[in-house]
Amino acid sequence: MADFASSPFSPVLIIGTGLLGTSMGLALREAGAEVFVDDQSPSAKALAVDYGAGRPREELDRDPDLVVVSVPPDVTADVVAESLSRFPSATVIDVASTKSDIVTSVDHPQRFLGTHPMAGRERGGAMAARVDLFTGRPWVITPTQDSPKDLIERVSALITGLRASVHQMSPADHDRAVAAVSHLPQLVSSAMAARLQEATPAALGLAGQGVRDVTRVAGSDVGLWLQILGQNANAVAPLLGAYIADLRAVEKALGDMGSPGAKRVIADLLARGVEGVSELPGKHGGSARFASLVVIIDDRPGQLARLLTDVGALEVNLEDMTLDHSPGASIGFVELSVIPSAVAQLARDLAERGWRIAGERR
Amino acid sequence: MADFASSPFSPVLIIGTGLLGTSMGLALREAGAEVFVDDQSPSAKALAVDYGAGRPREELDRDPDLVVVSVPPDVTADVVAESLSRFPSATVIDVASTKSDIVTSVDHPQRFLGTHPMAGRERGGAMAARVDLFTGRPWVITPTQDSPKDLIERVSALITGLRASVHQMSPADHDRAVAAVSHLPQLVSSAMAARLQEATPAALGLAGQGVRDVTRVAGSDVGLWLQILGQNANAVAPLLGAYIADLRAVEKALGDMGSPGAKRVIADLLARGVEGVSELPGKHGGSARFASLVVIIDDRPGQLARLLTDVGALEVNLEDMTLDHSPGASIGFVELSVIPSAVAQLARDLAERGWRIAGERR
Repeated sequence: MADFASSPFSPVLIIGTGLLGTSMGLALREAGAEVFVDDQSPSAKALAVDYGAGRPREELDRDPDLVVVSVPPDVTADVVAESLSRFPSATVIDVASTKSDIVTSVDHPQRFLGTHPMAGRERGGAMAARVDLFTGRPWVITPTQDSPKDLIERVSALITGLRASVHQMSPADHDRAVAAVSHLPQLVSSAMAARLQEATPAALGLAGQGVRDVTRVAGSDVGLWLQILGQNANAVAPLLGAYIADLRAVEKALGDMGSPGAKRVIADLLARGVEGVSELPGKHGGSARFASLVVIIDDRPGQLARLLTDVGALEVNLEDMTLDHSPGASIGFVELSVIPSAVAQLARDLAERGWRIAGERR
Repeated sequence: MADFASSPFSPVLIIGTGLLGTSMGLALREAGAEVFVDDQSPSAKALAVDYGAGRPREELDRDPDLVVVSVPPDVTADVVAESLSRFPSATVIDVASTKSDIVTSVDHPQRFLGTHPMAGRERGGAMAARVDLFTGRPWVITPTQDSPKDLIERVSALITGLRASVHQMSPADHDRAVAAVSHLPQLVSSAMAARLQEATPAALGLAGQGVRDVTRVAGSDVGLWLQILGQNANAVAPLLGAYIADLRAVEKALGDMGSPGAKRVIADLLARGVEGVSELPGKHGGSARFASLVVIIDDRPGQLARLLTDVGALEVNLEDMTLDHSPGASIGFVELSVIPSAVAQLARDLAERGWRIAGERR
């Protein structure tokens, strides 16, 4: 498609046709690259070919320009090393969820760059693949001090061409970061879901959206996560320890609610949670970087479009919005998120155009 | 509306115009009841009246048939007792999240029935109220052996009229059930979100949907949850203890991955999580009532308005929408929720108008 940059690498050999490999094949082909795929499992490879992710590796009659290693984490380092030696002119990248182990063991900075697209889904495999899996997602690259500038630039161009955004970090920083925003949440969720096994059917019948959200990622692939957690154990263990310590204090407080300070311990954790969730960028509970304005609209078709046309005419860029619409109620609430410096003026301008403002949040 | 049963109680006095009280007012009025609202805060009461939840209590010139006590948990028992004594012919129900404390302390089985609609949101207050908040939700009633059959039947009819489903349990069973499917998930989520405070901005920039889902409920009201957890401490504490014990074992395994059995401990917890989450009834994530369509928009002012203008021109009624915008990315995803029968046609019509459809969800 015309709006994708053309691929800086071609032909590309993708080894491993799971969710990431297949999605990359789809996206790279759309970006104009010639793509070939391989997988240890012939049926997985055939599925990816059928899906349109690329041609089978057997049809590759010259050395690839780029090898993408998208095999399970515990064989990634071996397949990277093998690819580097087999294709002496090719650039090689991997997409595994941890980076220190792999980058240290490969030690081939001239042609290898460790990368990690933040684009998992709780469903894996080629069937879950999407051409736009990486669109708008962070994609980490973890160069070392020996990585040539040219290599970093070409791989960054590849990532940008897939519409992801490049985040450059050291392997160790990457591993600590994903421990905090991905691996600990996985364990927290799995352990919560494990408790549900003890719940009665009557209790499970009361489950609402809250517990469903908390436990959604607990449905993820066990084998994959076992490898990820094993490779990142050093970064995950201390975070898990701190997490447990917080909950231990709450458990103690719950066991003796009459004691002085018990309520404070619990309130303190809950308040830190409110603060912590507000620090997540982008949508969700409002980010620290954006402020929001709640506007009341009448429940008539076209009201929302009219509001957004007005917002557009005011040349304000919406960062996020949610509609809180109650079928049957005579009004709805629209929360508009904008940069904090724009919110006061937007409120005035919208009020001037006759909109009712229910509140602001910074 | 014709498809609501008429209310078995009228007039109804609702004391406390937060999320639940205001939503009940909207729903009961739609069911044909005469509704009056009161709140300690005059501005909260005025907002609920403006919203259409009922008339102000001052205009109630006779005894109510039903009093709904929807005040914060720690004053619920007092307001219930006061209402029973002030209105000697009225039925009184509460909607608090724990039941043993309240049912024991009130001890007035002839006219009081403890209830709990499973219909919270992470945002509270009248602003978050919806007429359909209870539609399709479980609503627990906790009669004692002294509760008259007639009382149980009338309150059940009220709940059914609000399109919720009646779940009858003892107060103790209720409290154990919500500890497992609501209160423990809240603590798990809050403690996870609290950890995010220690994360670097670079790490937070990698946050994806997983951690957002796990921490969503951590944004809930601290004061309300402090009361709920305090009242249900006896049921929550042992569950939290078992949860912590599971994670302690994982922490130990992560600290010594080379030891025999370390991987088995982690794999076991992950596998139990997969099992546990599969035991949640119904479809996971998202309401069964609506389907959704994800549309890709460019990150330019006016794009969202243009999309919604197109949706409006197609005469499709939006039930909900969210914008998923990755800061710095050149595109965003707009999820449009509509009735399931409309989604396929909407996808075709929007594609015809040049919109890129990223996917459908039913």
